[in-house]
Amino acid sequence: MFVLVNLKAYPCDPVAVANAAATVADDTDARIAVAPQAAHLSAVAGTGVETWAQHVDGVEHGSHTGSTLAEAVADAGAVGTLINHSERRLRLADVDAGLRAAERAGLETVVCANNPRQVGAATALGPDAVAVEPPELIGTGTPVSQADPDVVEDAVAAAAAVDESVPVLCGAGISTGEDLAAARELGSEGVLLASGVAKADDPEAALRDLVSGV
Amino acid sequence: MFVLVNLKAYPCDPVAVANAAATVADDTDARIAVAPQAAHLSAVAGTGVETWAQHVDGVEHGSHTGSTLAEAVADAGAVGTLINHSERRLRLADVDAGLRAAERAGLETVVCANNPRQVGAATALGPDAVAVEPPELIGTGTPVSQADPDVVEDAVAAAAAVDESVPVLCGAGISTGEDLAAARELGSEGVLLASGVAKADDPEAALRDLVSGV
Amino acid sequence: MFVLVNLKAYPCDPVAVANAAATVADDTDARIAVAPQAAHLSAVAGTGVETWAQHVDGVEHGSHTGSTLAEAVADAGAVGTLINHSERRLRLADVDAGLRAAERAGLETVVCANNPRQVGAATALGPDAVAVEPPELIGTGTPVSQADPDVVEDAVAAAAAVDESVPVLCGAGISTGEDLAAARELGSEGVLLASGVAKADDPEAALRDLVSGV
Amino acid sequence: MFVLVNLKAYPCDPVAVANAAATVADDTDARIAVAPQAAHLSAVAGTGVETWAQHVDGVEHGSHTGSTLAEAVADAGAVGTLINHSERRLRLADVDAGLRAAERAGLETVVCANNPRQVGAATALGPDAVAVEPPELIGTGTPVSQADPDVVEDAVAAAAAVDESVPVLCGAGISTGEDLAAARELGSEGVLLASGVAKADDPEAALRDLVSGV
Repeated sequence: MFVLVNLKAYPCDPVAVANAAATVADDTDARIAVAPQAAHLSAVAGTGVETWAQHVDGVEHGSHTGSTLAEAVADAGAVGTLINHSERRLRLADVDAGLRAAERAGLETVVCANNPRQVGAATALGPDAVAVEPPELIGTGTPVSQADPDVVEDAVAAAAAVDESVPVLCGAGISTGEDLAAARELGSEGVLLASGVAKADDPEAALRDLVSGV
Repeated sequence: MFVLVNLKAYPCDPVAVANAAATVADDTDARIAVAPQAAHLSAVAGTGVETWAQHVDGVEHGSHTGSTLAEAVADAGAVGTLINHSERRLRLADVDAGLRAAERAGLETVVCANNPRQVGAATALGPDAVAVEPPELIGTGTPVSQADPDVVEDAVAAAAAVDESVPVLCGAGISTGEDLAAARELGSEGVLLASGVAKADDPEAALRDLVSGV
Repeated sequence: MFVLVNLKAYPCDPVAVANAAATVADDTDARIAVAPQAAHLSAVAGTGVETWAQHVDGVEHGSHTGSTLAEAVADAGAVGTLINHSERRLRLADVDAGLRAAERAGLETVVCANNPRQVGAATALGPDAVAVEPPELIGTGTPVSQADPDVVEDAVAAAAAVDESVPVLCGAGISTGEDLAAARELGSEGVLLASGVAKADDPEAALRDLVSGV
Repeated sequence: MFVLVNLKAYPCDPVAVANAAATVADDTDARIAVAPQAAHLSAVAGTGVETWAQHVDGVEHGSHTGSTLAEAVADAGAVGTLINHSERRLRLADVDAGLRAAERAGLETVVCANNPRQVGAATALGPDAVAVEPPELIGTGTPVSQADPDVVEDAVAAAAAVDESVPVLCGAGISTGEDLAAARELGSEGVLLASGVAKADDPEAALRDLVSGV
């Protein structure tokens, strides 16, 4: 199971969460990555944790002021990137372009989608993985694996129908080891989570509980 | 073969083009539709030609000032709609929502895409048809079937890999009966065209030449 | 006072509301306009009511599939247009381009803005009028003139500081003659309203009550 | 004169340019800042050069995956930010929100605009400075001060008509000391430049030539 901790624009200390994630990953052999703001990437990567970007734009080197260039996030230490998170939805053509930009820069990719149909579409664009996150459950604390288990199973089926080699992560409301185990039962190979760790009083304890479900 | 004439925001007389299309469709049994600006839909539909919208938003009835509501274009006489044209690219989630809105209003749908990979993704969202239009060829007068025949064949294969029942139209640079015949040879079941008819001195003659390729 | 009834994407009968507005305007000498979906413009204009568009894009004739061309809405009978409604916010450069497009097509313009600072900015772009609508009050039924009278007075001051000749309309929560009278007291020269008329059981009665405040 | 070097998404070494800028600034007392990709901010700030962001989003701490949070760029060492660059145009309401976010994080602000009218609008939103950059001249090597001196003078007048305390920078095609001197003559208090330094074989020499115009 891959655990990807999205720090969004939360008022947490990204380095403290990264250190906690690095410690738990070392102790447990779990694969845990942290995705901070682009401006925090080099500080987070400095902790030794697996570091991801939250977004890259589908642009090449050139006149793109204010863009997030895949090569720049890779320079800063990112080894992967989310694309099309529900808080940063992209045009279909830009999901495609973002994937090509990430590939060019050697970044692993997870494309997010809202429902099984969109998971199928995202899979057709050739990402390393897809993630299903029903927007109505994000940030609720109610895990998608409990609130709507069918959406996870249907997403796994939708991805497999297009390309069996693309794993499905699941997000929205995941915070405990039990949630992670349930997500695995439903066929997902990882989880996206955010507030459950980033806003925890003790991120390290939250991560230890989470990976106990592996 | 389905011939869809997109009037874009051209300074043509939409009713004159619609009358020409209606006449040629009647005379030849070709299926020809005209897609004008939303504000011109009722005038175009009044000619009796098959009338399409150029775009609908993925919204329901409600507080959506300045949107293009699927039910409103259907009221005005549209029976189908383009979605995600390269001049009106939508977010992946909004292509999905636009398709659901169009279905709800009883509109037939063609989702446009730039390349075979995006055609596969569009097909996964469940449209009635998809169209491949390499943006670099739009408006050039060089037909995609000649400039880049592989892109048409690859698009047909990409759609079939996801759902064999979804036909592929092809666009970009189509203007003659020869172009249409070539598009058909490559596996497409229709064409999108715009300037070749809308900017023609004699739209009726242009359409007659075009459908001679059927 | 100018009364602009925005039908948004409401499930109302646009022609029935337009007829009610035309009747009340005739009976009372109030200036009342109706802004329907683009696809409904010609039907609404056919009633004889003053007809406005909800939006125009900042484009010229050309390859702009799915756009709302100012000339097309004028063809369909619109004599004015909203620009930058809070449900259709535009980039600063596109507010400017939309205004120039509307001018070119002979449309009167009202640029919407969320707060006095943005009203000042909108005024600098040279519209015929500006409107202040705090987004948090839209659709609440609580009139801005009551919930936040300062925002109306400040908007009037902000517009005047940039260009004294640009009148300020006010929107958000307006539905009664009392609300309209209060808006006038605060310095506004018109009102934008939507659900108060469009969703009324009896739009004509709602409009008669409203203009009784003039 | 303030010299702001925008590195866009150019394939330059941001630290090398930053070191060159820091050296020239030290030697000449010119005010020179460098604006890299967000992911490069901390590396650039580490050189001691005045560091700016290319963009911030108008968001607060919270669920905003893939955003550029003003506090995050400040953490990474930025002391100012561009907003609404022509390659990253924002909605009018988001220019306002971006300015408020930057203020909250203690960042100095320059809002970019395409023409004098938009400069007036930007000024009304309360930035620390505005910049006029006609998009058609960006990257041409033809300085706006030479190609279209009126646009600079008109921009200075437009800003002053709204708020006399807001200085105007000028951009587009600036690369030599002569260009900078011309910009100053026309009333601007600084310049934005990009390729003239970022793509120079010797950025330090390019900057020395540039500030010789002060």
